[in-house]
Amino acid sequence: MNKIAHLGIPGSFSFIAAKKYFGERVLMKSCKTIKSVFANLITQDVDFGIVPAENSTTGSIVETYDQLIENKMYICGEISLKIHHHLLVTKDKIDLKSITVCYSHPQAVLQCESFFHDNSWIKSEFCDDTGSAAQLVSKNKKLGESAIAGRDTADIYGLKILRENIEDNKNNFTRFTVIGRKPNQRGNKASVVFSVKHIPGSLFNALRPYAGLGLNLTKIESRPLFGKTWEYIFFADFEIDNHLDKVNQMIKEMKETTEFITVLGIFNKGETYAT
Amino acid sequence: MNKIAHLGIPGSFSFIAAKKYFGERVLMKSCKTIKSVFANLITQDVDFGIVPAENSTTGSIVETYDQLIENKMYICGEISLKIHHHLLVTKDKIDLKSITVCYSHPQAVLQCESFFHDNSWIKSEFCDDTGSAAQLVSKNKKLGESAIAGRDTADIYGLKILRENIEDNKNNFTRFTVIGRKPNQRGNKASVVFSVKHIPGSLFNALRPYAGLGLNLTKIESRPLFGKTWEYIFFADFEIDNHLDKVNQMIKEMKETTEFITVLGIFNKGETYAT
Repeated sequence: MNKIAHLGIPGSFSFIAAKKYFGERVLMKSCKTIKSVFANLITQDVDFGIVPAENSTTGSIVETYDQLIENKMYICGEISLKIHHHLLVTKDKIDLKSITVCYSHPQAVLQCESFFHDNSWIKSEFCDDTGSAAQLVSKNKKLGESAIAGRDTADIYGLKILRENIEDNKNNFTRFTVIGRKPNQRGNKASVVFSVKHIPGSLFNALRPYAGLGLNLTKIESRPLFGKTWEYIFFADFEIDNHLDKVNQMIKEMKETTEFITVLGIFNKGETYAT
Repeated sequence: MNKIAHLGIPGSFSFIAAKKYFGERVLMKSCKTIKSVFANLITQDVDFGIVPAENSTTGSIVETYDQLIENKMYICGEISLKIHHHLLVTKDKIDLKSITVCYSHPQAVLQCESFFHDNSWIKSEFCDDTGSAAQLVSKNKKLGESAIAGRDTADIYGLKILRENIEDNKNNFTRFTVIGRKPNQRGNKASVVFSVKHIPGSLFNALRPYAGLGLNLTKIESRPLFGKTWEYIFFADFEIDNHLDKVNQMIKEMKETTEFITVLGIFNKGETYAT
């Protein structure tokens, strides 16, 4: 049975993503930080890790990409969650006016700004993740307490949904990356990181091979290294339709036009689930 | 005298950025949201706005780019802050052990995770921005209270630095964008947004003109529209060395190879200041 390290405690979004991706028949290990998910992978304490990679409103999770490169781990899969936030309480039919405090992750609170503005008597309090918030409310069993988390998290901690979809942005997606020690040998997407010289046309020339091979680029992002004006790196994802030969050819050709290039992984395009 | 709308109250990072960019001889207007900075610009209540555009650890501030496009406003300048966080208190020589609460913006608290871990008796509390946190501590004048903010903010509210540089990441930069109603006619950088068809090689072909004209690309980012798999847009910055003719030529040529392209602004590369 595979063992999976995930960010946060049971009920965190990474935990939910892991359950959706791997199913129920896995062992789970909670990690407090993205770094610690990678550390568990390195010490072979787990088989795979799952961490957030990109959010539709806040962009790439830079630490995930940093850790991938630093530890030479591989992207083995992906899955996306459409993030809905719900106000969870301990019992049905509680009056919203009687709620005095709401626990959640700072990002979740930021994403429900209008709700807190409209219901300004509810004071928000920090937790490490949405899972911890739900767990705390579930343990405390106080009528005035609430948490912001997803539907699966409510189920895990036996909480009720008092208000659903209290998020400001109804199109908030997070893409999670499944990481492993070994690269996959097949898949329909490839993720690479590369750098080019800071001279005119260098990115264009670096991209020439992908275009020549008829591959489709689905993401590109330059990583601003603010302190080092002349050094920066690019992250790019390609649709490869299982044409591993083309990817190998592309990498070979891109080695001629880039300063360095590394394949972060070959994997299958992920499904999306609502929270 | 120019009037500038900025995010947050006096002492927020956007306020500090505005003061560094425009100097002291301007009128300032506080805004609670990025949207409201743009609203003030549209109603002509201010001459310019200043908002965060990109952070080195969290990436692009998507709302800024959304508002730029939605309201047809222009990037007129930029300035970067190297973000140092300091623990601010009301008096010199306070024992850290006597601090019970720390006010700050959720992002600032997240960026000082190790500090809160090591000094776990200090409870963090939310504020709208680092300026509000400093203002609150300054008003309350309670010995057990502290705020996380920058050096200039400490000066504005007469607070003392009890611990400096408590941020985890010593290379945390935020780039701010100066926005206006009219485009500049000169500058050494150009910022554009464009979209291409989701077909192989489309980005490569879209970039052909910039390479042909010998321009330097300093940033590129695809915006993931998670809900709409086949639609996405690219933000790109180019160094243009005041060659406006080349930019015009590039746009003309890119119109042939993109679905749409818009110049977000021509401006001068910004300086960087430490907070």
